[in-house]
Amino acid sequence: MIVVMKSGAAPHEIQGVVDRVNELGFRAHLSVGEERTIIGVIGDERPVNESMFRLMDGVEKVVRILKPFKLASRDFHPQDTVVPIDGVSVGGPRVVLIAGPCAVEDREQLMETAYALKEMGVHILRGGAFKPRTSPYSFQGLGERGLELLAEAKAETGLAIVTEAMAPQQVPLVCEVADIVQVGARNMQNFSLLHAVGEAGKPVLLKRGMMATMEELLMAAEYVLSHGNYRVMLCERGIRTFETYTRNTLDISAVPVLKQFTHLPVFIDPSHATGNWEWVTPLARAAVAAGADGLIIEVHPHPDKALSDGAQSLRLDRFAELVEEVRAVAQAVHRTL
Amino acid sequence: MIVVMKSGAAPHEIQGVVDRVNELGFRAHLSVGEERTIIGVIGDERPVNESMFRLMDGVEKVVRILKPFKLASRDFHPQDTVVPIDGVSVGGPRVVLIAGPCAVEDREQLMETAYALKEMGVHILRGGAFKPRTSPYSFQGLGERGLELLAEAKAETGLAIVTEAMAPQQVPLVCEVADIVQVGARNMQNFSLLHAVGEAGKPVLLKRGMMATMEELLMAAEYVLSHGNYRVMLCERGIRTFETYTRNTLDISAVPVLKQFTHLPVFIDPSHATGNWEWVTPLARAAVAAGADGLIIEVHPHPDKALSDGAQSLRLDRFAELVEEVRAVAQAVHRTL
Amino acid sequence: MIVVMKSGAAPHEIQGVVDRVNELGFRAHLSVGEERTIIGVIGDERPVNESMFRLMDGVEKVVRILKPFKLASRDFHPQDTVVPIDGVSVGGPRVVLIAGPCAVEDREQLMETAYALKEMGVHILRGGAFKPRTSPYSFQGLGERGLELLAEAKAETGLAIVTEAMAPQQVPLVCEVADIVQVGARNMQNFSLLHAVGEAGKPVLLKRGMMATMEELLMAAEYVLSHGNYRVMLCERGIRTFETYTRNTLDISAVPVLKQFTHLPVFIDPSHATGNWEWVTPLARAAVAAGADGLIIEVHPHPDKALSDGAQSLRLDRFAELVEEVRAVAQAVHRTL
Amino acid sequence: MIVVMKSGAAPHEIQGVVDRVNELGFRAHLSVGEERTIIGVIGDERPVNESMFRLMDGVEKVVRILKPFKLASRDFHPQDTVVPIDGVSVGGPRVVLIAGPCAVEDREQLMETAYALKEMGVHILRGGAFKPRTSPYSFQGLGERGLELLAEAKAETGLAIVTEAMAPQQVPLVCEVADIVQVGARNMQNFSLLHAVGEAGKPVLLKRGMMATMEELLMAAEYVLSHGNYRVMLCERGIRTFETYTRNTLDISAVPVLKQFTHLPVFIDPSHATGNWEWVTPLARAAVAAGADGLIIEVHPHPDKALSDGAQSLRLDRFAELVEEVRAVAQAVHRTL
Repeated sequence: MIVVMKSGAAPHEIQGVVDRVNELGFRAHLSVGEERTIIGVIGDERPVNESMFRLMDGVEKVVRILKPFKLASRDFHPQDTVVPIDGVSVGGPRVVLIAGPCAVEDREQLMETAYALKEMGVHILRGGAFKPRTSPYSFQGLGERGLELLAEAKAETGLAIVTEAMAPQQVPLVCEVADIVQVGARNMQNFSLLHAVGEAGKPVLLKRGMMATMEELLMAAEYVLSHGNYRVMLCERGIRTFETYTRNTLDISAVPVLKQFTHLPVFIDPSHATGNWEWVTPLARAAVAAGADGLIIEVHPHPDKALSDGAQSLRLDRFAELVEEVRAVAQAVHRTL
Repeated sequence: MIVVMKSGAAPHEIQGVVDRVNELGFRAHLSVGEERTIIGVIGDERPVNESMFRLMDGVEKVVRILKPFKLASRDFHPQDTVVPIDGVSVGGPRVVLIAGPCAVEDREQLMETAYALKEMGVHILRGGAFKPRTSPYSFQGLGERGLELLAEAKAETGLAIVTEAMAPQQVPLVCEVADIVQVGARNMQNFSLLHAVGEAGKPVLLKRGMMATMEELLMAAEYVLSHGNYRVMLCERGIRTFETYTRNTLDISAVPVLKQFTHLPVFIDPSHATGNWEWVTPLARAAVAAGADGLIIEVHPHPDKALSDGAQSLRLDRFAELVEEVRAVAQAVHRTL
Repeated sequence: MIVVMKSGAAPHEIQGVVDRVNELGFRAHLSVGEERTIIGVIGDERPVNESMFRLMDGVEKVVRILKPFKLASRDFHPQDTVVPIDGVSVGGPRVVLIAGPCAVEDREQLMETAYALKEMGVHILRGGAFKPRTSPYSFQGLGERGLELLAEAKAETGLAIVTEAMAPQQVPLVCEVADIVQVGARNMQNFSLLHAVGEAGKPVLLKRGMMATMEELLMAAEYVLSHGNYRVMLCERGIRTFETYTRNTLDISAVPVLKQFTHLPVFIDPSHATGNWEWVTPLARAAVAAGADGLIIEVHPHPDKALSDGAQSLRLDRFAELVEEVRAVAQAVHRTL
Repeated sequence: MIVVMKSGAAPHEIQGVVDRVNELGFRAHLSVGEERTIIGVIGDERPVNESMFRLMDGVEKVVRILKPFKLASRDFHPQDTVVPIDGVSVGGPRVVLIAGPCAVEDREQLMETAYALKEMGVHILRGGAFKPRTSPYSFQGLGERGLELLAEAKAETGLAIVTEAMAPQQVPLVCEVADIVQVGARNMQNFSLLHAVGEAGKPVLLKRGMMATMEELLMAAEYVLSHGNYRVMLCERGIRTFETYTRNTLDISAVPVLKQFTHLPVFIDPSHATGNWEWVTPLARAAVAAGADGLIIEVHPHPDKALSDGAQSLRLDRFAELVEEVRAVAQAVHRTL
């Protein structure tokens, strides 16, 4: 941490900062510039409150040097984290495919989808039982009945299951069925929920909030990691911008940036990013070309009958084409599907 | 709802849409234009899923006509909602002041603040017991001990209390102490929590998410209202933009826009919006000039010792000046303090 | 400027940076931390290219300490700049009103507006002759004929004139008629135009780009100032965000923030910010309460016949009400109108 | 265009809108709904001003049906536009590579780069002679001397040249040397410049403004097309968002979205998007996987000595690796390099 003094700060103001640095158990290094004095704070700054210096007389600003995450960082854990899910390794050379409907709607819809995906080589089935919806008048998911259907799909097809928990009290229930617990974008900073999934110990798919920076995503992961659960997978699913042709803006740069800063696997969800099935396949190709460890994609046997997110769901036949196109790109970047 | 057909849509495609409109229990009105046909869907569109039309052959786009909120709208409830809080009317001619520290830190800090605010004519004391923090390494609040201190401050000074619940299971505990339950910005779309505060029945201060549109804020309010709790107060506290000189961007337009579309009272929180105490007072004046029903402001007896948000907290003497400046503006817009 | 070395940077890498600091004519100050070494660069960093350090081996990041603007800063010129415009002082205790139509449409529209505004005590008439329009199919302004009409309005009513120049070659023509040359939001970083108005020497109204930071606005002002023209007035007119109920988001915080960092006067344009006349008056009150030095507002005798921006233009009678409401707020903050 | 009446609009208000529709030469179609009446405006709405209806009594809102661009649309010109540049076809099966330094700095830098790129199979050389810079204190480019050096590089290596014009009066000069005139992101809505390059008739590389929607980009292209110049290539180079780890956010979705809506070729510039050379290659791969027609990439023989944009410039050897990686991805999506 660096404390930048105002130009013309008085000697006693500078001394005041140095004294507080020492009180807090750090050491201070002064650099006296032409216009300003800057004071380096030597020590692990992570738990320190910036405003303790920023509000002192004579201080212009405070600059952090260290990134605020630790367990999630490459400095702490240089090798890629690989999360084994029911025989599939997430974060290794294979690009992992998660697919399925936005919401579990009924037995027929789910089984038709699950069998078809199994045959196409998909590894993990997604499907929402508890659905966070902007409107209280929209379909809110089947709840526990949805979990039962997912358990049935798993038993029949052998696909692993990822589904969302919306509140701490749902976590145990979800963990009974799911191989991976999803924390949705709107709950990325639901710290009570992060605490609960951290303690539950199941693998977690943590989706980036639509208005969260990558740093905040990594801090949310840090919550889970710091509760002892290291099996965290990140997922970029589009951020909110001023552009309106797409539902969100896929931040494709998140792939190389996150892979540089963290050891955790990175997924891309092109369905929520675009909100339009027509653009899902090109973005799925792009995600793999950029180095993503996996894709999570919404499919539906009859998108025009879907109770939610129909517009962004691929038909099963179109998803089969996506798989082939993505396979070619995966090979071009020396990965497998 | 209006379904816009592609230019050159075939007659059977148009008929297909008309048939589905009828199946869903609506009536269809056709307008045949030079380039396109448009189909008006006659009936209450709120529960209908856009994609049920958007994905049909020949359809270019679907436009909603009605705003998606109902109970929160002026159409439904033309008069201003007035929420009585312990003798103070929120949403009436008086501008209501909420002030207090970001977090309850200890007995001394809270009582010193509470007594001073009481004397300045503040109506409601704020103070966090459960604190949502970006970092797991930051101060997370005193929890239940914080609630006890708030109860004590209330008993001693007679100030009403607003404090945050972060998870559904905390709501009953918070309701024992608080006159108003706060739903924080990061939880604005925590639908399990909205459900819980809707059922608890206590007045709710609902803060706009930093990433939420006004429509989403009103839909979050709709969740609470639709669970039978009509005593909801909205609060704009800055949205996330590309600007970096301020912590967030105060969306001052939210005051007249929300007041036009909804009957619920609207507060402004200039402390979180700017992140810097130096800019809080001018924005507090602006908020009242724009027509806000109340202000919520962070104060601390010793901001440079604060365990959170010190940089944006006003010292007590500076807050006293704010009160006088805001009083003059309130009079200029024919309101009282 | 501070150069932060990577944790574990080698001694020769540190020395490499120190050597380059010296080569460039600065002095280097080392702070050796527990995790990292940081190197303070002592001297005026403004002309230095960050990447000259950032790309060196062992460097993690480079942090600028000084704000990049100089002539526009309060450090350089602590007193408020006051710009005299035809007998009115902009930037002093009086809040200055600029009003008029978006575009000059014809003689009758302009004169009716000008006479009415004169009578209400408005100081400066706005009206576009050259109009930047998103679509090539929209009305592009009357061009030179528009300038002639503005000259006539000035001669008849004595109002000062502000109008926009869109390209360097239009500046001399505009300067013949205008008391203030406007640089529009879309041209805020049209550096050729900034150069031209800097050299022309007429007072400049510089509008913030809808996606420009305050720092970029101040750097655009710096272009004009550095060409010898110190009579620059800044104008916040709404920035682009994800919110869609308003056309743009008025960044009201820009008033106190800019007033702290620069000596230049600050205007607010609530018409472009909201895009809706119904919200202009409350935001005009808010702007003055926040400390703005002036307002620029679109009015039209018949908004529903306006060739551009009708939706955000106030009728003359409604503008008269705005003037009275703003007058009361100005008095509450110890200013006059 | 559709005019939505307020719920409870009076019959004479509805008639008023119908009358104005007819006055303007359109036909009106009424749909009487349960809550509202909507009026379809039949005819080409593009030149009509929305506010002419929106401000009428009883009107709630006005919805446009047609996209506002015409010449740039696929409806108007279904086939892909192919722009021949000195023997290379842009917009066909081959992915076209543009590379070179941000700015032309001196003869040696430019020639070293040009010869190396020629050998790697690059088709077009970029290099700025006139440089738009945020700060008046930064290097502003060599101006005409830069153009001379570009002409020399072209004569020696046979590479085609793309370079930027910043103002209308520079266009003729730039056209003498350049095979493609670039309109930079900050000038995307410099309508005087768009007019000038439209009339000049040379191929144009139009960069998306960092604050511009795709629709605005297409409207900017429409300006050039409507002045008779059809050889326009679009370029996405990152938009401004709240994310700070990258300089801008690459809007990769722009590739499939633009390719669907327009016939013009689409380039991606990953250098400006990220601001960091380390992330350029993965994004270049992603761009080609998504379907981009070309890439424009900053390279420099010695990035740490570059006078501008060094941090995002690739060294020549690293660019050679990029070419090979991109070639593999191009083949995977059935294109060549």
